Parts: sequence; C-alpha cells; structure tokens
Amino acid sequence: MRMRRRRPTEPSGEPGRDIARLLDDARALLREAGVTPAELSAVGISAPGPLDRARGAVVGPPNLPGWRDVPLRDALAEGLGLPVHLENDANAAALAEWRFGAGRGFDDLVYLTMSTGIGAGLVLGGELYTGSFGNAGELGHLPIEWDGELCACGQRGCLEAYVGGAAWTRRLRACTPAGSRVAALAGDSAVKPEHVVAAAGEGDPFACEEIERFNRYLVRGLTALVFTFAPQAIVLGTIVAAAGEGLCLDPVRTDLAARVWPLLGRGLVVRAAELGERLPELAGLCVAFPEA
Amino acid sequence: MRMRRRRPTEPSGEPGRDIARLLDDARALLREAGVTPAELSAVGISAPGPLDRARGAVVGPPNLPGWRDVPLRDALAEGLGLPVHLENDANAAALAEWRFGAGRGFDDLVYLTMSTGIGAGLVLGGELYTGSFGNAGELGHLPIEWDGELCACGQRGCLEAYVGGAAWTRRLRACTPAGSRVAALAGDSAVKPEHVVAAAGEGDPFACEEIERFNRYLVRGLTALVFTFAPQAIVLGTIVAAAGEGLCLDPVRTDLAARVWPLLGRGLVVRAAELGERLPELAGLCVAFPEA
Repeated sequence: MRMRRRRPTEPSGEPGRDIARLLDDARALLREAGVTPAELSAVGISAPGPLDRARGAVVGPPNLPGWRDVPLRDALAEGLGLPVHLENDANAAALAEWRFGAGRGFDDLVYLTMSTGIGAGLVLGGELYTGSFGNAGELGHLPIEWDGELCACGQRGCLEAYVGGAAWTRRLRACTPAGSRVAALAGDSAVKPEHVVAAAGEGDPFACEEIERFNRYLVRGLTALVFTFAPQAIVLGTIVAAAGEGLCLDPVRTDLAARVWPLLGRGLVVRAAELGERLPELAGLCVAFPEA
Repeated sequence: MRMRRRRPTEPSGEPGRDIARLLDDARALLREAGVTPAELSAVGISAPGPLDRARGAVVGPPNLPGWRDVPLRDALAEGLGLPVHLENDANAAALAEWRFGAGRGFDDLVYLTMSTGIGAGLVLGGELYTGSFGNAGELGHLPIEWDGELCACGQRGCLEAYVGGAAWTRRLRACTPAGSRVAALAGDSAVKPEHVVAAAGEGDPFACEEIERFNRYLVRGLTALVFTFAPQAIVLGTIVAAAGEGLCLDPVRTDLAARVWPLLGRGLVVRAAELGERLPELAGLCVAFPEA
C-alpha cells in the first residue's frame, strides 16, 4: 500500500512543537490508511544536513530555524514505537535515484540536488559513502572561484553560491531587466530560476545568458568531482532536470568532456534525475530499508 | 631480512628492455640475499599511474616515455614465477603512511605525494579507495584556478600546475632573481624547490614569497578535498615534509581552518609524511600484502 501526504516544513522555531506536528501527521496518515504502527517495519526520515549520524540528530540546517542539535531520530522512534532511520536529504535522494531512478546500475555515482542549495550524495563502490563523521560530500561548497561570491555558508566562491537556487534567485532579483521575458513570466511574483528556464526555452537572450552562466559554473564543480571520484555517472537534480537536455545537459556534457581527461570522461554518464514527484517517498523508503 | 637496491628508472624508450632490466635487478638482489624466488610469497610494485588495474598494466605515465599500455604485472609475474601486485605510487605511498607512518590510526585519510607531480592516495573507511576503474583521486588535477596555468596534463589551472615540483621548478627558472640567495644556493645547478625551501629557512624574502605562494595554492586544493571527503587526516609528502612546520604546515593549517566549516576543520589533522627514505620499500610491502 502506498499513501502520501505532503506538507511544507514551516518550522515554528521550536523543534519540540515541530516534532509533535510530524508525529500527528504520521498518526493521521496511519489512521487514514487503516494501519497500526505495529504493522510497520521501519520509518525512514530524509532530513536536511548536517546531521550527527551517531546520535541521529539534526545539527542545525540553515533552513530550519531553531533546530540546533535536535535528536529527531529518537524523538520519532519514541513517539511511534518503531525503529527510525535518519539520513540527510541529499544522501537519501542519491539512494533513491540509484535504486529506482537515473542512477540504476552504476556502482560509482554522484548525485547533486541542485535545488535551494547544492547537496551531494555519493554512492561509491556500490555503497553510500558518508565519511567517518557523516559529513563527506559537501560538494556544494567546493570552491569554484577562489574568494568569489559570498555563500550562505559564510565561505566565498562555493559552487552553491553560483548554481544554488537561493543564490541564483537573489542574483536574478538584482539583475533581471524590467521589460524582459523573464520578468513577464514572473509577473507579480518574484523572479525565480524556473522563469529563466521557461524564458530560455523560448529563446529569450537574457535567460539564455543566465542558463549559460549556470552551466559554466556547474561544469567547474563537475570537473572537480570527476577528477576526484572518477564516477560512472553523475545525476543532477531539480534545476537541471527542469532545464533538460537542450538547455543544460547537452552543453554541460560537451563542456565537461573538454575539461577532464579522456580516460575519465569516456563512458561518463551525465543525466537528469528521474524520480521527480516520487522522490520524497522513495527517498524515505531507501532510508527506512538501507539494506533492501 | 631487509635488503634494498635503488636505481633511477632511466626508461630506455622500450618497455621490454626496461622490464628485462628490472628482472635482472630483482634476481641480482635475490642472489645477493641468498634467497630463491620460491622462498618469496609475493612481489609488490608501486608504479606511476594511470594504471589499468584489471589488467595490471601501466597505461602511459608522462615520465615513462614509450610505456604505453604495458602489462607490467604479468611480465614480472612470469619472469619471477611469483604473484605480483601492482599499485599506483600515490596509493602505495598512502598505504605505507597509513600503516607505518603519519597516517597511523586514521580511517579516513588523504595522502598527497607533493613531488614532481601531485598524486593522491585515498584511504576511506579504512580501505584504499580507487573508484570503479582505479582512476579516482586525481587530486593533482583539481581545478584551483579556472582557465589558469597550463598543466602538463593538458588542462588548465590544475593544483599540480601550481604546487607540483616540476611546474614550480619551471617557474623558478623563469623568475628567480639573479643575485638572490636562492640562485646562490643553486650555484651552477638549476634552481629547484629545495633551494627555495633552504633559502626561506634563512629568511630570504624572495624564497619566503615563493613558499607563501605555494602554501596559498596548496590550501585551495586542501579546501576542496576537505569539503569532499571530510577526512580525519591529510598527510603531505615530499616538498611539504622538507619545508616542515614553520614554513609550510603551520601557515597551511591556519589558512585552511579559515576556509572550511568548523564542523569539518575541527579535529582535522594536517601533517607531513614521516617515512622519508623508507617509503619506497614500505610502499612495495603494502602493495605485496594488501590485506596484512
């Protein structure tokens, strides 16, 4: 049986209250499904990192105000009386795309989230790689322009400061020409990357330049990760999946091939994530059953 | 029993002849030691990459002219009648420093060779990590300055093009002031990084600037690898080991700590390789007995 419920996180500033609401949601969903907690095997949580993996705690993600060192895993396990597994969202998504999506069949795979921020999930040698302390793979913070743009993380020149959705959105609000197609598509709402993608699809010059800039900086990050991991496949999430082959993947593949050794570029697969709307539930599933 | 024989590689341009000479050397060493091949368990070879690991072949290292796709492992195994294991030199050195040197006790360790070129050996989760095709960890070719200095590999802006010994030597020959302390130390021979290290140790301003430049670019590469691997330790070879704490390691640690998240920098150990002259034989030993 598959049932789903989606809700924006809307953190209250008080993790205890947020967790109580999560538990209420979970219980309501179970009632709706006519299932008791005892009939479940496990719960999988995909949460924004960084995490303290040993303690199953959310350490303090920028987008969850008030969540500092919150033992989410144990709080939910206690509330539901079930084993709960916790994984950071980029890793969970990487597992899902690896098992069910664009990454199927690749033992060495790098997945990049490409949404508000840039997160990475590393499947190396057929296993999720998280490093000793669970903090490996912060590829959104690879320095791609030394002393470059300020990143939300406090460092400068991070990949995320160039191709992260939040950073790009800030830039677009500052530089989108008033009468442009991008501005027209945004209408009364604030300009977002999705408007640029749509306008570029129509051939709008400003939008095309923005997409080219995005691709150029993305290739810098991908070049670094190819020399580092020599992966079989790179799977790119949200923004790239939305922009698709013509606007993004084709030019990125071409530029990347010129930037890495033929030995490393030959046979390298670069593709968009496939799971789309199904990602959250499949990510949770992969976290709940890590060995399945 | 431990016996050693060192010889410069001096490739003849004909791999078959080079291998015959390797075999002659090995047999001579055995005779000298009064040991027959049958009394040996295994042979370990540390060779410059890239390698084709599956076939035990040397693919075509820039410093071994004429060696293209040479099945070194099988040629030596046949010549000696013994099992031969082949590993690239950076990985072999990483294993040796991990088991016997500066990397002891760390399960997640990045070792950088820092000599003519920059090679990396990755010990991740207590195992050597080489990627599916054995080509992961080419950290000498991380782009640290996009479209920057031309690297021997053909790409631009690689870490190796800034802090590799060969690249640095080329630069020094072009920019060392004629009457400087560095030039005096080099005397009639060509200027090398070791002269800069020596002159910087005496406080020579040109040499100190060169070391600062070296450190600055090295930190760029280390920053990328910390965000990528979140290692417990980074062990730095030849040039850094020669420059030591005051000239190199202290400033690099300070600069690196400012460039990475406290979460990743806290507890990170950055130190010089320890094995020095003992490295080649211990590297070979680690390759011969990978599970020991």
